[in-house]
Amino acid sequence: MSRVFSGIQPTGDPHIGNYFGAMQNYVRLGEQYGKQSLYCVVDLHAITNPGAFDPRTLAEKTFDMAVANFAIGLDPSRVIFFVQSHVPEHQELSWIFTCVTPVGELERMTQYKDKSAQFESVPSGLLMYPALMAADILLYKADTVPVGEDQTQHIELTREIARKFNHNFGETFTEPRAVYNQGALRIPGVDGQGKMSKSKGNTIGILEPLDDIWQKLRVAPTDPARVRRTDPGDPDKCLIGDYHKLFSPPETLETVYQGCRTAGIGCVDCKKMLMTHLGAHLEPIQARAAELRSDPDFVRDALRQGAQEARAIASEVMNEVREKVGFLKL
Amino acid sequence: MSRVFSGIQPTGDPHIGNYFGAMQNYVRLGEQYGKQSLYCVVDLHAITNPGAFDPRTLAEKTFDMAVANFAIGLDPSRVIFFVQSHVPEHQELSWIFTCVTPVGELERMTQYKDKSAQFESVPSGLLMYPALMAADILLYKADTVPVGEDQTQHIELTREIARKFNHNFGETFTEPRAVYNQGALRIPGVDGQGKMSKSKGNTIGILEPLDDIWQKLRVAPTDPARVRRTDPGDPDKCLIGDYHKLFSPPETLETVYQGCRTAGIGCVDCKKMLMTHLGAHLEPIQARAAELRSDPDFVRDALRQGAQEARAIASEVMNEVREKVGFLKL
Repeated sequence: MSRVFSGIQPTGDPHIGNYFGAMQNYVRLGEQYGKQSLYCVVDLHAITNPGAFDPRTLAEKTFDMAVANFAIGLDPSRVIFFVQSHVPEHQELSWIFTCVTPVGELERMTQYKDKSAQFESVPSGLLMYPALMAADILLYKADTVPVGEDQTQHIELTREIARKFNHNFGETFTEPRAVYNQGALRIPGVDGQGKMSKSKGNTIGILEPLDDIWQKLRVAPTDPARVRRTDPGDPDKCLIGDYHKLFSPPETLETVYQGCRTAGIGCVDCKKMLMTHLGAHLEPIQARAAELRSDPDFVRDALRQGAQEARAIASEVMNEVREKVGFLKL
Repeated sequence: MSRVFSGIQPTGDPHIGNYFGAMQNYVRLGEQYGKQSLYCVVDLHAITNPGAFDPRTLAEKTFDMAVANFAIGLDPSRVIFFVQSHVPEHQELSWIFTCVTPVGELERMTQYKDKSAQFESVPSGLLMYPALMAADILLYKADTVPVGEDQTQHIELTREIARKFNHNFGETFTEPRAVYNQGALRIPGVDGQGKMSKSKGNTIGILEPLDDIWQKLRVAPTDPARVRRTDPGDPDKCLIGDYHKLFSPPETLETVYQGCRTAGIGCVDCKKMLMTHLGAHLEPIQARAAELRSDPDFVRDALRQGAQEARAIASEVMNEVREKVGFLKL
């Protein structure tokens, strides 16, 4: 039996990079794997950087990530969707993995090296992050893990931890494989300065008011070679062209590509056409999100149910783990 | 309200150094603090050195530590006695503390430096040990922690972690203070080569058969200046003299001291007198231990009850912690 696990950072407001890169993938996998797919808002990971998270907004952002995912079509009654801190078996297994993981392997993680370089005093949570991530995945004996390419090394370490646990305590875990989220790396930020990313402030939020999105698109840079309205442009060198590929139907794409290359349409017209399709795509999602926000009990019940379903699997795996490690069973 | 927490390593067979150094202290504190004193067999700490613990015997050793402590008079119905892995809130809080503790502070721990020097590849559990120890104590808001002097630095770090948590998330924990177990450092091993310690193999187990103990005492070195039976000796330079101070009544002590100094008694006579009193002291303890072993359900029920009582406190503290850190509450 194949099982999917995916961790979702509680950023609160996913952008279209997250949406096309990862979230749509969850919906597809959810349809395929049903209750064998687990989606976990990883609030325990979010606190690894005490400077970057705010205890006053963490709960709200966690809730909002559930809303956003449900709004785009991830059906909590058909998959298992839950919040990490509601299943304390994550930390329980994480401690056991910490005991089989050499410090040196954690120090070698590229993401740790990058992040820790920003601190004078490095919080230990940053170093131990991959042991918790391994616990997230193996707690459910998940074998399929949709991630971004930046997580390759962490998945490799998860496989190593699974091997080490099996070696020390007997065959328990199978090694999971990464399934890469497509597209995320290719979606440019609205400032034209590389990848869309929250830390760069160049995002279009999927739940952002459409007027605000238009204000961003209106001033977004286009093909720099197209200086005058009458200059032909290259839509493959234009972020608006990239966005059209995400939101617009084939006939619009053809019109836009043709019009840009022949200077038949101007950039403002092109942006307006994009806005029409982007709006048509996001409007029902935003309507569904508003509906969910007006019914917080539905969201809370879904998360409660999700945590229960997750714990049903987790507690079985932990029983096996506790016995293999040799803890006294009463 | 004052509360005691103490961690007990699941070594399985405590020796008279542990007994006079720490375990008798637990009994005294237990009588004083009752249900405000918690004694925890720390099996989660025992696994931090994957080379030094055996998954096949951990459960048995954990059970045996309960037996030994109950046998010497720690009454599980009057204190809270439990096994660490039965209260997963320990790992839950440990993860949160890991996130507020700088890597550098953990690397600075003397015990870590000593222990890690023995490894080519250092397990991360060794590094994170003090964060779990801080969680052990603060999970119960214990303010009084009986420890050996080698734990001073860890208690200092626990205080630092309490301050840091309070600073980041609001006043929650009070800083605990160490209460030093007396005597342990002064009890020599039966080989006369310094402190009694399991790793040196120079112990007298409190549950060791008395015949075996006699075989060890019989060949134990005495004052090296007393070469012949007729030479006077110095009982203050003799480990048998030290043991007499632990086990023998004042009148025997006087006889022995006087006899040794005047060569009035020989070392074998002196050892036999020690054996009489040591036997009288340990015999009822060993009888009680045998009784407990023949009624494992009593021990298991006591541990089950202890875990329940510990969790009642722990879950209240964790509710407060989760809310302060900002996790979504359903």
